[in-house]
Amino acid sequence: MAPVQDPSALLAELAGVLDPAGLQIGDAIETRFRKDWYAPLDPQPPVAVARPRSTAEVSAVLAICNRHRQPVVPQGGLTGLAGAATPAGGELVLSLERMRGVEEIDARAGTMTVLAGTTLQATQDAARAADWLFPVDLGARGSCQIGGNIATNAGGNRVIRYGMMREQVLGLEAVLADGTVVSSLNKMQKNNAGYDLRQLFIGSEGTLGVITRAVLRLAPLPSSTQTALCALRSYEDVVALLRHAQRRLSGRVSAFEAMWADFYELVTTRVPGVRNPLPAGSPFYVLVDLQGNDAVQDGAAFESMLETAMEAGLITDAAVATSEKEAESFWKLRDAVAEFPVMWAPNAAYDVSVPIGQIGRFAESLRTAVLARWPHAELVNFGHVGDSNLHVSVYLPGATAEDFPEHEISEVLYPKVQEFDGSISAEHGIGTHKKPFLGHSRTPEALELMRSLKRSLDPNLILSPGRVIDVARELPR
Amino acid sequence: MAPVQDPSALLAELAGVLDPAGLQIGDAIETRFRKDWYAPLDPQPPVAVARPRSTAEVSAVLAICNRHRQPVVPQGGLTGLAGAATPAGGELVLSLERMRGVEEIDARAGTMTVLAGTTLQATQDAARAADWLFPVDLGARGSCQIGGNIATNAGGNRVIRYGMMREQVLGLEAVLADGTVVSSLNKMQKNNAGYDLRQLFIGSEGTLGVITRAVLRLAPLPSSTQTALCALRSYEDVVALLRHAQRRLSGRVSAFEAMWADFYELVTTRVPGVRNPLPAGSPFYVLVDLQGNDAVQDGAAFESMLETAMEAGLITDAAVATSEKEAESFWKLRDAVAEFPVMWAPNAAYDVSVPIGQIGRFAESLRTAVLARWPHAELVNFGHVGDSNLHVSVYLPGATAEDFPEHEISEVLYPKVQEFDGSISAEHGIGTHKKPFLGHSRTPEALELMRSLKRSLDPNLILSPGRVIDVARELPR
Repeated sequence: MAPVQDPSALLAELAGVLDPAGLQIGDAIETRFRKDWYAPLDPQPPVAVARPRSTAEVSAVLAICNRHRQPVVPQGGLTGLAGAATPAGGELVLSLERMRGVEEIDARAGTMTVLAGTTLQATQDAARAADWLFPVDLGARGSCQIGGNIATNAGGNRVIRYGMMREQVLGLEAVLADGTVVSSLNKMQKNNAGYDLRQLFIGSEGTLGVITRAVLRLAPLPSSTQTALCALRSYEDVVALLRHAQRRLSGRVSAFEAMWADFYELVTTRVPGVRNPLPAGSPFYVLVDLQGNDAVQDGAAFESMLETAMEAGLITDAAVATSEKEAESFWKLRDAVAEFPVMWAPNAAYDVSVPIGQIGRFAESLRTAVLARWPHAELVNFGHVGDSNLHVSVYLPGATAEDFPEHEISEVLYPKVQEFDGSISAEHGIGTHKKPFLGHSRTPEALELMRSLKRSLDPNLILSPGRVIDVARELPR
Repeated sequence: MAPVQDPSALLAELAGVLDPAGLQIGDAIETRFRKDWYAPLDPQPPVAVARPRSTAEVSAVLAICNRHRQPVVPQGGLTGLAGAATPAGGELVLSLERMRGVEEIDARAGTMTVLAGTTLQATQDAARAADWLFPVDLGARGSCQIGGNIATNAGGNRVIRYGMMREQVLGLEAVLADGTVVSSLNKMQKNNAGYDLRQLFIGSEGTLGVITRAVLRLAPLPSSTQTALCALRSYEDVVALLRHAQRRLSGRVSAFEAMWADFYELVTTRVPGVRNPLPAGSPFYVLVDLQGNDAVQDGAAFESMLETAMEAGLITDAAVATSEKEAESFWKLRDAVAEFPVMWAPNAAYDVSVPIGQIGRFAESLRTAVLARWPHAELVNFGHVGDSNLHVSVYLPGATAEDFPEHEISEVLYPKVQEFDGSISAEHGIGTHKKPFLGHSRTPEALELMRSLKRSLDPNLILSPGRVIDVARELPR
């Protein structure tokens, strides 16, 4: 869609509904609004940045834009890894950053009501201060915002126990493209009164509506954490350990992170400050967390789980963290991935999911295919195996950012994901980045249904056009 | 929508795509297809009953009906309590009962693929035989079908731990009104590749598509259950005990059923075979279950939880089941509700949800309002308080089925639900029964968005018309 030619009428209307700090135009547009963590800055600037303070202002801005057929890209904390929030030239940025704060914590219902622009960290902190846990957690917690977490259905390390963002959202307020406010600030876990409209907006990456407020479900705050690093012989044993731990520690396994030998060696030898609690050389390593509320009982159950795993030959070695500090040092192994973009550039980082039992074969098959084409490539595999999520990074020694063949690697990887009935995006979303490959995970009928949903909710196609899926108007207007 | 006037062309086409046992017409239509557990039989018969054997046949039937503008009502086990599956005269019944069976259990991924017509019981049994748990459970398990459980987003007693049916559905295959098959038999917990189309069909009560097949998530099979019945002084203490138990038994509380004094007295004095493990007279009783995998450790944790609750004054008395048989006898207290329709008729049975902290005040306020209008009414309250679900039954001594003022009682109750920001249906759905009251739980904007979804997915409005919400075509055709 071409943006409006002369934006002056649009801008005048927007100025009528926003306060002076709520509208940036021309040279006043701050660069920070022009790119997210993934997609590069468009040389053409956005037409304006709107920073509403309330749902009513969001509604007014969208109604105006819809009338003007002005494309709009909603923005949260801009930490997305699929490029959905980088504005194309001429788009209007709708930043939720001024709509922040925890409005209510209902300690008896175990819920909190939060404005979309609240950071994940502030949300977690407020929950903890009220003696509850908000369980979704990811590296970008200090910058990412709840609205963006919901719009992208964020995942993270604890999905195995608590689910994705989708499972935390009890109530939602969102604004449709035409400015209609659809509000259901439900606090109940059970509610079957008509269609569940929340689901339309969760994970739709800003293409179906703008999330303004949410009621989140809280979990009992654990007081005790047990952490171990295990060495294993095979991927089969990784799956067997997962099932053994989940069975034995009923309900309390909070993380289960697998690392392939290549990953373990890379981070223990190349990332400063990362210790190796176990010797390198094992085919697999697993980091497993139990969270509970009785350190003595939990510790005994955890030790017993590890002992029986050892006796059964599922693990060949294990180190149990004896302090919080030690547990943190174990987790540094996994969190070392944050260093990859710098120490190991250029690389292509993938976020896929594959049925749990198949991940081992998938990783081998992918390695073979990549090495056949790029014999000098280095691959590392790691992931939240308990929820079927595998991260793969591919590095080509000697390649430069300019000649790095990311698209060609994707053209090897995504068909392989399809072959294993996997998903091209486990948790990062599609945005603009993975849009060309969506057909590897979705049938033509599913893609067509997505398009008809888009047309139904946003008939003028103003919301985040070109993200997730390309949609043409059925009829010229 | 008026059904087709002369159905002969329609029936001939259907006969062309179904086997002889797959199509019942005229006098051959079995009465069992003409009503579900809630809504009475329509004096006018359905035009036919189609019993397809495959997704391809479902697709062919729907394509034909869509062309003929023939209204269709999908049927599962017919155990619904909101009337959605009772066919109105002239509708076509689409029964999924011949599409049954567990197609695959992936013991490593922890998933099972099931045809829509498989009963819940058969699904649970197959999971258990493979050493896994399918956690959704409800009284109608022997008759209700997975497709219906998904279409109505079934709940039950274990939602507090495992979630509703929605949380169990990893993958779904559904057929749209025009016969398009939308398939995503995903096995992964994490999948953010585009819009989550499953959610459209889950809980939409057959109005947006016909579910044919699902991939279900399985849970580790618990081997140990602890059950206690507790007596409490106040609803405040019920909530405090819930939070105490969830905190102390991290991840392992599997049921938390509250019974008000009136309920306890009714079932212990009037239902044959129900014992009273604790004396009557306490304001509240709670049935709490822990499920785990270490009987010794779990038993110690459970006892310790109860002891600390007693010391803190949260509970005034408790009985712990010492055998599976005793636990079953405790649960008979709660399951005695199955006798209400017979022993206590006529009564109006409600299924609502209210934010957990407010349920006590809601129940009192409702009692006052009902007694003000019907001074001789008897009310009992019970519910899955841990997931915010309250069941209320209202009985009027001396009333007959003919003069029982159910609608008038609803007109007192549902505005009260609205006043407490609750839902008019926690788990039973809307169907035809609660349709007139939907506005008490949903805003006009939400209702309008529901209508536009319906028009988008089923433009000829052939699927379960008149269920959940009334939708008019925007334009005459």
